[in-house]
Amino acid sequence: MRSAAEVAAAITRLSIRGAPLIGVAAGYGVALELARDPDALPRACETLVAARPTAVNLVHAVDRVRQAASASAPGRPRVAAALAQARAIHAEEAASSFALGRHGADQLAGCRRILTHCNTGALAAPGRGTGLAVIAELADRGELELVLVSESRPLLQGARLTVYELGRLGIAHELIVDGAAAGLIAAGEVDAVVVGCDRVAANGDVANKVGTYSHALAAAAGGIPFIVAGPCSTIDRDCATGAEIAIEQRDADEVRRVPSGGAGGSYEVTVAGTPCRNPAFDLTPAALITALVTERGVAKPVTGGAVLGLLG
Amino acid sequence: MRSAAEVAAAITRLSIRGAPLIGVAAGYGVALELARDPDALPRACETLVAARPTAVNLVHAVDRVRQAASASAPGRPRVAAALAQARAIHAEEAASSFALGRHGADQLAGCRRILTHCNTGALAAPGRGTGLAVIAELADRGELELVLVSESRPLLQGARLTVYELGRLGIAHELIVDGAAAGLIAAGEVDAVVVGCDRVAANGDVANKVGTYSHALAAAAGGIPFIVAGPCSTIDRDCATGAEIAIEQRDADEVRRVPSGGAGGSYEVTVAGTPCRNPAFDLTPAALITALVTERGVAKPVTGGAVLGLLG
Repeated sequence: MRSAAEVAAAITRLSIRGAPLIGVAAGYGVALELARDPDALPRACETLVAARPTAVNLVHAVDRVRQAASASAPGRPRVAAALAQARAIHAEEAASSFALGRHGADQLAGCRRILTHCNTGALAAPGRGTGLAVIAELADRGELELVLVSESRPLLQGARLTVYELGRLGIAHELIVDGAAAGLIAAGEVDAVVVGCDRVAANGDVANKVGTYSHALAAAAGGIPFIVAGPCSTIDRDCATGAEIAIEQRDADEVRRVPSGGAGGSYEVTVAGTPCRNPAFDLTPAALITALVTERGVAKPVTGGAVLGLLG
Repeated sequence: MRSAAEVAAAITRLSIRGAPLIGVAAGYGVALELARDPDALPRACETLVAARPTAVNLVHAVDRVRQAASASAPGRPRVAAALAQARAIHAEEAASSFALGRHGADQLAGCRRILTHCNTGALAAPGRGTGLAVIAELADRGELELVLVSESRPLLQGARLTVYELGRLGIAHELIVDGAAAGLIAAGEVDAVVVGCDRVAANGDVANKVGTYSHALAAAAGGIPFIVAGPCSTIDRDCATGAEIAIEQRDADEVRRVPSGGAGGSYEVTVAGTPCRNPAFDLTPAALITALVTERGVAKPVTGGAVLGLLG
């Protein structure tokens, strides 16, 4: 991307997703626009904030870069100041990801074979992401043998994104269908499950990508740890329990069709027009979660007191 | 199909699967060949038995038709006798399926929304099949509101076969991804789960299509019945527990690729060459099964005594 408008468009069409990642990208967007036109500061900020007006991290990041740029001399020094501030935001978020990874790995001493779901790496969050940051830290510590990746139908983020990220990280992995996870856990093939989270209720109930809950049930039945990783910003203190979280129902075509691995395209896999139910998320009750891992530390056991304690 | 050789080829390439269905088809195969050449009885029987030499039902069915044909006059009466015997075998197997359906439906009074997995209908077994025979009987009794069908990755038998069969039966249905089942059960959207079985151990442990076990865990957590349906021939009295059942590991390409809904073809959905684990089945322990339903009656609770009692 070469301009604030291009960054804003990428945020609007969800090519850049996840609150912290949007903030980081928007910071760079301001600097990019200033590099094209050092007088463009107000317009650049306006364009980016409008990309997703409800994203708090975005507004905050754009504000920080705007203030840093405003405080410096016009021209090249202003571009440099904006870029330095964008890099600072990026570094802070990456540091949070690494901290979360360390806290998570501390919970998983001796766990060599990890099962993960959906995509929780650098394509979803700054640094090394959330769940995948824990897995990467385990690999750094020399404790990791294998990552089992459940494909994560309907959109196959496990097969399309997580497999790609693990390959780039040089971490041994095997892909499975979502329905194979429980049997492999029961057969003793998995030492721990690590997933991300979309929203955490005040009591520790977790909403995450559909398919998470059945992995949690299998982990409990198999007596292995089930670890949820996410930034403190996903904890919603105004949401008492998971029952208050509305589950987004998405388009039936996501179930009727399967995305191809290449650029674009998808293929119908059932009778045309088949009615479908397509909940995007499911709820995992706090009682099934061994630990909630954040950049500030860990809630374990996952009780309301421990979860809200992480927010300070 | 118009000859014994065509029926034998369909059995060999697994286009016709399931022990009882193979027997029925082979019986008709003998009659078909006699209609082409009334003197072809020995060759027809030989061709069909060679299609899958280990299939006991096949040998038995071919034998019955051979004896009936041999006992009648040559020419047209012989063709008629063979066809009548093939029809008798078919009727017996269909009656078993209907009996199984009634026994299953008796267990599900008041259950209006059923979740099923993989394909257990007329494409997998004679009559109305096994699990789908239970569902069809519930529909006949006016007790059925909706069938939720989990797609059954990797080969998508739910999306490709069960959806098709329910459509032909005029039964309302919705397709879901496998990972959505547990969350829908927890949300109170399902009254009972009905699945088939590939093999039942003497203690009631069940091997069935991968993904079955996580549905059983979710049913237990949600407090709804989990019903396994299959003919008594799937009970293996020489197999003490599920731990003795070897789980077939199938080709990685089934996970890397997704079959398209149309005729043939499949599409790659992950990074080329990604290593995969592909267990075709999983084990559901007897303790998670509410009832085992057969054509001869029901084992409930599912104990070794009750299961072996069905074998008489």
